[in-house]
Amino acid sequence: MSQELFVVNNVWMMVSIFLVFIMHLGFATLESGLVRSKNTVNILFKNSMIPPIGLLTYALWGFSLMYPGEAFAGGFFGFSGFGISLPEGGETSAYNEGYTFWTDFLFQGMFAATAATIVSGAVAERVKLGTYIIFSIIFVGACYPIVGMWKWGGGFLDTLETPFYDFAGSTLVHSVGGWGALAGIILLGPRIGKYVGGKTKPIPGHSMPLATIGVFILWLGWFGFNGGSVLSADPGAVSRVLVMTSLAAAAGALGAFFVSYSLFKSSDLTMVLNGILAGLVGITAGADQMSVVDSAVIGLVAGALVVLGVLLFDKLKIDDPVGALSVHLICGIWGTLAVGLFGELAGVDQLISQLTGIGVVGAFSFVFAFAVWFALKSISGIRVSETEEIDGLDMHEHKMHAYPDINAPANEVTRLENSTVEDKKKMPANVAN
Amino acid sequence: MSQELFVVNNVWMMVSIFLVFIMHLGFATLESGLVRSKNTVNILFKNSMIPPIGLLTYALWGFSLMYPGEAFAGGFFGFSGFGISLPEGGETSAYNEGYTFWTDFLFQGMFAATAATIVSGAVAERVKLGTYIIFSIIFVGACYPIVGMWKWGGGFLDTLETPFYDFAGSTLVHSVGGWGALAGIILLGPRIGKYVGGKTKPIPGHSMPLATIGVFILWLGWFGFNGGSVLSADPGAVSRVLVMTSLAAAAGALGAFFVSYSLFKSSDLTMVLNGILAGLVGITAGADQMSVVDSAVIGLVAGALVVLGVLLFDKLKIDDPVGALSVHLICGIWGTLAVGLFGELAGVDQLISQLTGIGVVGAFSFVFAFAVWFALKSISGIRVSETEEIDGLDMHEHKMHAYPDINAPANEVTRLENSTVEDKKKMPANVAN
Amino acid sequence: MSQELFVVNNVWMMVSIFLVFIMHLGFATLESGLVRSKNTVNILFKNSMIPPIGLLTYALWGFSLMYPGEAFAGGFFGFSGFGISLPEGGETSAYNEGYTFWTDFLFQGMFAATAATIVSGAVAERVKLGTYIIFSIIFVGACYPIVGMWKWGGGFLDTLETPFYDFAGSTLVHSVGGWGALAGIILLGPRIGKYVGGKTKPIPGHSMPLATIGVFILWLGWFGFNGGSVLSADPGAVSRVLVMTSLAAAAGALGAFFVSYSLFKSSDLTMVLNGILAGLVGITAGADQMSVVDSAVIGLVAGALVVLGVLLFDKLKIDDPVGALSVHLICGIWGTLAVGLFGELAGVDQLISQLTGIGVVGAFSFVFAFAVWFALKSISGIRVSETEEIDGLDMHEHKMHAYPDINAPANEVTRLENSTVEDKKKMPANVAN
Repeated sequence: MSQELFVVNNVWMMVSIFLVFIMHLGFATLESGLVRSKNTVNILFKNSMIPPIGLLTYALWGFSLMYPGEAFAGGFFGFSGFGISLPEGGETSAYNEGYTFWTDFLFQGMFAATAATIVSGAVAERVKLGTYIIFSIIFVGACYPIVGMWKWGGGFLDTLETPFYDFAGSTLVHSVGGWGALAGIILLGPRIGKYVGGKTKPIPGHSMPLATIGVFILWLGWFGFNGGSVLSADPGAVSRVLVMTSLAAAAGALGAFFVSYSLFKSSDLTMVLNGILAGLVGITAGADQMSVVDSAVIGLVAGALVVLGVLLFDKLKIDDPVGALSVHLICGIWGTLAVGLFGELAGVDQLISQLTGIGVVGAFSFVFAFAVWFALKSISGIRVSETEEIDGLDMHEHKMHAYPDINAPANEVTRLENSTVEDKKKMPANVAN
Repeated sequence: MSQELFVVNNVWMMVSIFLVFIMHLGFATLESGLVRSKNTVNILFKNSMIPPIGLLTYALWGFSLMYPGEAFAGGFFGFSGFGISLPEGGETSAYNEGYTFWTDFLFQGMFAATAATIVSGAVAERVKLGTYIIFSIIFVGACYPIVGMWKWGGGFLDTLETPFYDFAGSTLVHSVGGWGALAGIILLGPRIGKYVGGKTKPIPGHSMPLATIGVFILWLGWFGFNGGSVLSADPGAVSRVLVMTSLAAAAGALGAFFVSYSLFKSSDLTMVLNGILAGLVGITAGADQMSVVDSAVIGLVAGALVVLGVLLFDKLKIDDPVGALSVHLICGIWGTLAVGLFGELAGVDQLISQLTGIGVVGAFSFVFAFAVWFALKSISGIRVSETEEIDGLDMHEHKMHAYPDINAPANEVTRLENSTVEDKKKMPANVAN
Repeated sequence: MSQELFVVNNVWMMVSIFLVFIMHLGFATLESGLVRSKNTVNILFKNSMIPPIGLLTYALWGFSLMYPGEAFAGGFFGFSGFGISLPEGGETSAYNEGYTFWTDFLFQGMFAATAATIVSGAVAERVKLGTYIIFSIIFVGACYPIVGMWKWGGGFLDTLETPFYDFAGSTLVHSVGGWGALAGIILLGPRIGKYVGGKTKPIPGHSMPLATIGVFILWLGWFGFNGGSVLSADPGAVSRVLVMTSLAAAAGALGAFFVSYSLFKSSDLTMVLNGILAGLVGITAGADQMSVVDSAVIGLVAGALVVLGVLLFDKLKIDDPVGALSVHLICGIWGTLAVGLFGELAGVDQLISQLTGIGVVGAFSFVFAFAVWFALKSISGIRVSETEEIDGLDMHEHKMHAYPDINAPANEVTRLENSTVEDKKKMPANVAN
């Protein structure tokens, strides 16, 4: 291997790091756009803390749990020690032909944090902040790397006779996050006012521009999420992955549009946005295995599934403010199955391995997350008080408003409306203006 | 050619794909910032559907229309068959020394969608959604690739004695989009309340932060739009293109500032933003041919033109909510002419070829677009009802608000104002908050 | 050196250019999120003008001041002539093994503009627009390149016996901007209503989503700011810099969270956001010299410092709306000192050189900026009128509102409230909706 090829591989992987990093902004804007303005600071706070927490726990022990190497090559669990330190030759192609040790750590660390981010939207608008932060530390610090090791760290799912296949994480990232979210939602219960008298009331998100920005940034980030998962700049492999990723996203938008339009007779923006994400999640497990037609079909089905998923979860009174379960859990499962149904690996044996992986990872992740949420519920509670939920989490947990001079929360507006003009003049500039 | 050079060229082209992709977010935020909040979901919906539609039509037939290759090398029309499939050697430098087949498709596909996006802003706030979507499919699926073939696919504009020159698409992308927009505006007519009693009323866009975000993202994207049009990572050529692109953008801002300040005696943010875009469109045809001074002059003139263009179109009662005609059509023409006036190709013969290209492409695009808009008008109508326009398209086409708990539309606000405090308390949380 | 390596180095540096460029969007969104909505157009206008002004002044004379080369290698001042022109071999590795002449200019030019941007947030909400623009031209056109030459252009700080070390500009960019801001704030005075009767009144920023977007984009941009400062794609060096940069940012978030939570008993989003920036500024001087633990400690301390800094400046009645002094000046100094305390260069001699650099650069920058602000104050005034400040700068300087149909400024709202429903119906569509 030439030094030149090593350098360009590493540049590509660094670009992929940037793209996966910026997905955290995508999640932050998407989720904040899909909650009410009174809970916006709260969701931004959570999404701002996740990359720091994800990176630091990954540096402290996560990377060693997920890639234990010789400490325990294979099986169910391994650990190569706390902290990260440059191995012999870690800055050369002796470490890997595709990247340095540092690049490896940072790419994987940025990935790790996404699993926790998926949860934040699903439990939004009623979860206690401290509880969520503690859950995230445990979930991203233990559940994600242990499960990830089973396949990507050379564990038992990788050494099945027909190995389980998950190219970039439809199961290992997206479903894992989805299972963590499902456990939380079940223990939290729905938001006040969501299911009233047998009816489902829509609680629309407060900013469609923010939500749209989020989805475009996530699509952008997915070029690194999937493209970087080739783990080198191999021109044919990477560029093919980018095309299949994009076609699935595009088809996902159409699938969601067709289904939602035929059901609701309106052009629902959030469904199209979720359709794009659905296509992206769906292609992630097999982006390097699919043809053009495969990718379009996978995306189209994912887009349809995401709309049906939202309706299903509402029927089950599982209240997911941002549709995270439909996007990440359902389409994560769909994408993983698709590897056994379409593309170069399709076949019965593969399908069985895919079902095995989905089942084992799902069972572990859900039980793990349920246990953590349950423990936290017993110890400190996981849900805010009714007053806090109605007022919005921003005023209580953060003593801040997302838009203090545009949209003060309801009770303050009422106070303002009941005050006289004279009163208004006496108010400090920062409230009045 | 070494494998290493092929890999790095392909990495550069993939980075350019990302940058051109993110331009779609730039257009989405710019255009949504420049319309009223009651039409924001509508413009976001259109801009979210365009990349999917653009990519899928390009995969189905557009790429084969624009680059028919041996199917018909040159002339006015060619077609190499439906769908895309990897040619022999398509993942190696045998296909092209700068990129794989997949990279080629995706870069060109991302380009294709931009032409349709230019139209969406210009016809905003009164066009029927379904009509616009159908127009876009036809325009991006047929007009853009046919015209693009005339030059970039080796067609007759490329084989003139002095070939028409359009480095990255001042004419082939920006003017084409501009002509499509002009045809639509003429058939649609101005928005209600825009031209009243001989006077032009400003209808300001609803969010200056969104508009500003859009312009910065578009400038960023232009690094890939122009830089990627070198079609390899050639260090001298690409880096020079980046510098000339940036200097034109910078000079465009100043040009627009000077002219708008001298006319209006105020520092108009939207004019400066449009000035940046004007400079970018202006340099696009000759970014690889210009000196530092050429680029600054081209940008400065473009910035001035964009302000004068806005005034001109208002005088003509051509209502373009986002200034797309001034930016993309006028400055697209200016940039194409500039290739004959400045830089390495300047000369009378070149100027004649540039005028030829502008004229032929303009005539075809305008007639094509006019015919499509006209047909759609005859069949289903292209303009929403007066009620729908006054209420805003979001409530009717989408049954959604962009900011449901911040800024519900006028009639709901009135209803709220007329309700008692008791009534307000009875409202569901999602409306009251 | 192989041509392949030169090409990939140059690609990496071009990617870094894009990342540093997009920092300007990060500053624009962060600063606009942290001011009131009535001054939002103003801050967006300033941030949109800075990159154009920065690039053009850098092309006209700044680049020649900062890197005079043989015109005056070393010392206090040098100048190699107006304008930029391609030197012999400027597009090959003969110019530099890491990049072409054009890449060099654009990377440095994008850097230059950041120093001025730091000032804009600090003087926001009361500085005259024209004054600020003129200050910026002088500051970024003269102060920044002269001071930068002292170290990066081979000047006297680079030729000390133990050379002053500032890898990517904790001092040369961030502190310089901070000193310029401090001088402006002192001469401007605090905003009306900030310090009333011995008390500090919080004036919260108008949009937390915008502020959060800004910080994520700045973190992204820092990958190019620090990673590009390696000046080649050297895999080990660059990827290590990226890891240390990220860990410092992550630790900065935690540091700010711990300190602000223990002081205020609430989870303050703006403090966490500023903590991320603090970590980034803190690691900038020595990102290539630090270990994993060093980086985390530097970030943690920076995050703590930024919270204490905000409190300190308020105690001193130095009114900095966006916390720029705490982030860029205090943490810039901290990061520069850290090079003498941690990492591969740590030692007494280095610490003395760091103090020397901090002192000399600080004294020059502050005196320079103070003199310019003072001269402008004498000539034309630097502060807007009281009426203008209370109404907001947007209505006076720009005759625009940031959100015209969501949040018209106070006096218009009052007018609307006092008008009858009949009056409202008579208003033009663009005001009523």
